[in-house]
Amino acid sequence: MSDLKLPSRSEDFSEWYNQLVIQAKLADYAPVRGCMIVRPYGWALWENIQQYLDRVFKATGHLNAAFPLLIPRSFIDKEKSHVEGFSPELAVVTHGGGQELEEPLVIRPTSETIIGHSFSKWIQSYRDLPLLINQWNSVVRWELRTKLFLRTLEFFWQEGHTAHATAEEADAETRQMLGVYRDFAVNEAAIPVIPGRKSASERFAGADETYSIEAMMGDGKALQSATSHNLGQNFAKAFEIQYLDKGGILQHCWTTSWGLSTRFIGAIIMVHGDDQGLILPPRLAPHQVVIVPIFKTDEEKAKVMDAAHRVRNELVASSFRVVLDEREGMTPGFRFNDWEMRGVPLRIEIGPKDVQKETVVLARRDKPGKEGKTFVSQAGLSAAVKETLELIQKALYERALNFRNANTVDPKNYEEFQGAVENGFASSYWCGSAKCEQSIKEATKATLRCIPLEQPDEKGTCIFCGQSANEKVIFAKAY
Amino acid sequence: MSDLKLPSRSEDFSEWYNQLVIQAKLADYAPVRGCMIVRPYGWALWENIQQYLDRVFKATGHLNAAFPLLIPRSFIDKEKSHVEGFSPELAVVTHGGGQELEEPLVIRPTSETIIGHSFSKWIQSYRDLPLLINQWNSVVRWELRTKLFLRTLEFFWQEGHTAHATAEEADAETRQMLGVYRDFAVNEAAIPVIPGRKSASERFAGADETYSIEAMMGDGKALQSATSHNLGQNFAKAFEIQYLDKGGILQHCWTTSWGLSTRFIGAIIMVHGDDQGLILPPRLAPHQVVIVPIFKTDEEKAKVMDAAHRVRNELVASSFRVVLDEREGMTPGFRFNDWEMRGVPLRIEIGPKDVQKETVVLARRDKPGKEGKTFVSQAGLSAAVKETLELIQKALYERALNFRNANTVDPKNYEEFQGAVENGFASSYWCGSAKCEQSIKEATKATLRCIPLEQPDEKGTCIFCGQSANEKVIFAKAY
Repeated sequence: MSDLKLPSRSEDFSEWYNQLVIQAKLADYAPVRGCMIVRPYGWALWENIQQYLDRVFKATGHLNAAFPLLIPRSFIDKEKSHVEGFSPELAVVTHGGGQELEEPLVIRPTSETIIGHSFSKWIQSYRDLPLLINQWNSVVRWELRTKLFLRTLEFFWQEGHTAHATAEEADAETRQMLGVYRDFAVNEAAIPVIPGRKSASERFAGADETYSIEAMMGDGKALQSATSHNLGQNFAKAFEIQYLDKGGILQHCWTTSWGLSTRFIGAIIMVHGDDQGLILPPRLAPHQVVIVPIFKTDEEKAKVMDAAHRVRNELVASSFRVVLDEREGMTPGFRFNDWEMRGVPLRIEIGPKDVQKETVVLARRDKPGKEGKTFVSQAGLSAAVKETLELIQKALYERALNFRNANTVDPKNYEEFQGAVENGFASSYWCGSAKCEQSIKEATKATLRCIPLEQPDEKGTCIFCGQSANEKVIFAKAY
Repeated sequence: MSDLKLPSRSEDFSEWYNQLVIQAKLADYAPVRGCMIVRPYGWALWENIQQYLDRVFKATGHLNAAFPLLIPRSFIDKEKSHVEGFSPELAVVTHGGGQELEEPLVIRPTSETIIGHSFSKWIQSYRDLPLLINQWNSVVRWELRTKLFLRTLEFFWQEGHTAHATAEEADAETRQMLGVYRDFAVNEAAIPVIPGRKSASERFAGADETYSIEAMMGDGKALQSATSHNLGQNFAKAFEIQYLDKGGILQHCWTTSWGLSTRFIGAIIMVHGDDQGLILPPRLAPHQVVIVPIFKTDEEKAKVMDAAHRVRNELVASSFRVVLDEREGMTPGFRFNDWEMRGVPLRIEIGPKDVQKETVVLARRDKPGKEGKTFVSQAGLSAAVKETLELIQKALYERALNFRNANTVDPKNYEEFQGAVENGFASSYWCGSAKCEQSIKEATKATLRCIPLEQPDEKGTCIFCGQSANEKVIFAKAY
């Protein structure tokens, strides 16, 4: 048993994160540089994310499919911006079955090209549209600096790919999926996010328009938490994705793609975690409740374990995700620390006195010490657990929102702006010039995170050049 | 619209299979030789397989996790038999991020090595055992001759990997998972299977014992439909997977691995399909029921569609997986053929007369023509559908079992044996010698499929050499 102690967040946020991921048993480093092993606890969290999103994708008409891992190198070259964006990051297979290959293959960094190739075969007429596909898989991008969940050579995600008859439908799809991600972040992960458009320089390689949701991490930096791309006719032209319209005329389709990855787990850690470890939002937590029995003598043990099993069974019957800590030879204090490190939102303690009084202690993970403890009757426990989990879910969201508001500044001048992006978000007018954007980036390391969909009524002046500006944008340092 | 016609099974079974996979829209050829694209209909079938197995894996204590796609080449070399078995089939990544790699990486052909490496870090004491892990992923093996689902360079599967304190526990796990696969095949896929042990020459590269379930396809050939391996201490020794036992002594673990792949979809096709196309067992079918409305005039259409929607909603409310065919401009005959090709087990026809009489027609996919049709009242339709689907599920299993029985011979001598393996299974005594096994393979192309777990009480004489033999085994040509 390790001693379960993290550096404090204020002291060294980056090292706090790295050690938390390992100590909470979410993931581990793989023997290949920059790759990760997602451990069962981390994967269970990902499965809960998958289940929610998969249900919504299907409810909005999308079908899952599976496209191959290996793509002919020549496919990547077919779309001009795409090849520029992804060429430096490719993993290349040159040998198969002991022979050198005639054409090298790349491991997919994303699947627009190979899915575009299929779409061109599957789509003939307007009757085949819209074509709405999603795939859960992993992709490989040869990153230089890596960090578990946030940036790894191989990462897990879903990639949606759709084809439409008109530009309007493609735009509506792109925005719809952004909305799905926003609802997921807010309602399931308790993470406030800003949905917006990317500037041209931050767009996906091959997109006409990229939308994202941006979240503020616990150190004030931004994390792009999901993206949705309107690909216009770029891939349709590169891969000849065409359909006969109702008038019998051959038209190019309009396509989109959108994705959310295991990176989002990094967001959950960095938004909600504290110095004791992870704090998971109840809706996504693999274990929503942990029951820790407390006893000294064998006689006490018998009674306490009996009550603990009864409570566990009742909560399981009420469809809570519950774990009963039956491990031997560990002190209650050690167990408390262990489950706090792993972020279980609600702990139920049962000791000999509780058995006698037919009560239990509920201890909220988000409120340390006595403040988060209540004594409740064993009768009607399910209702109390339900209510408490909902309170925790809500409290996590509010805390994150308050933190973001406290660290978002509307700077009066460029000097204030420079201070703002050191600790959080600057919400400033921008003239739209890539030059201003670039100058800010060079001077402050802050990037233009997004042009929020929600805009003030009035116009303003660019925070950098002072020219008139139509849009207010978010600048921040980012992961 | 293609004309949906297959070669007959008796005429050209192989070509019947190839065309069925394409025409039923289960899968498509990928641009890379030997790879496949699993289309939404095929993937929905796989998701139903996954859901069942995943539930059982979790109920038996297994946890999902994710290990990397890329493995250092040197890992494969650590287990002697493993490297011999897999070296010829590896896909090798030599370049990443524009640079040649110092050590080439292989795309996992299976994950014993990389999971063994993790197990050696995660396991310290007997308290950490058993460690029961599963992963849903895809793997790559550089096969020369490929066929959609049956043998592809990349295929989708689950791979279970477990570590235990004793040989007995590892053996029990190996057999338990074989039982899970057998139950799945029989109860869910309606495929009779023979669970048994592999001979030494047919074992997994690195296993002490390999178990499999073997099924007879519609052409009499065998398909290994899932495997479960007892790896003894081979990988534990190669990767130093060790634990401190209760006495404080360092011991090597005993490990297992087991898998079922998208190959199983090939079994479903070849066991149940007929000249009209696919026939899916109701428990796994993406659509259990298709509703085909029939009308000529607009007036008829309004009434028929109204009834069709009502029926659909009622069946969806009863948790059936239902599709209503609302496509325009296709004759009922074309639709019938289309849904028959795609293997939907039950068709509901609703025409103007049915609306009037408040009835529908139920047409079973497994019984062509009038024999499979019944007229039932719209009142209480859910119960009739439930019963009919259960009948279909049962009938498919019985038909497959009868076929297997009719094509399994207990040959009196080697001449009869040679005839038997031309058309099906030979169930014969075998002396246990690899030489006899090899001679039979060379002469007949039949391989020793398995030594069934269920054995007759008496002993016999080897079908090849005439020496005394303890075990009766299955020989057959195989996919």
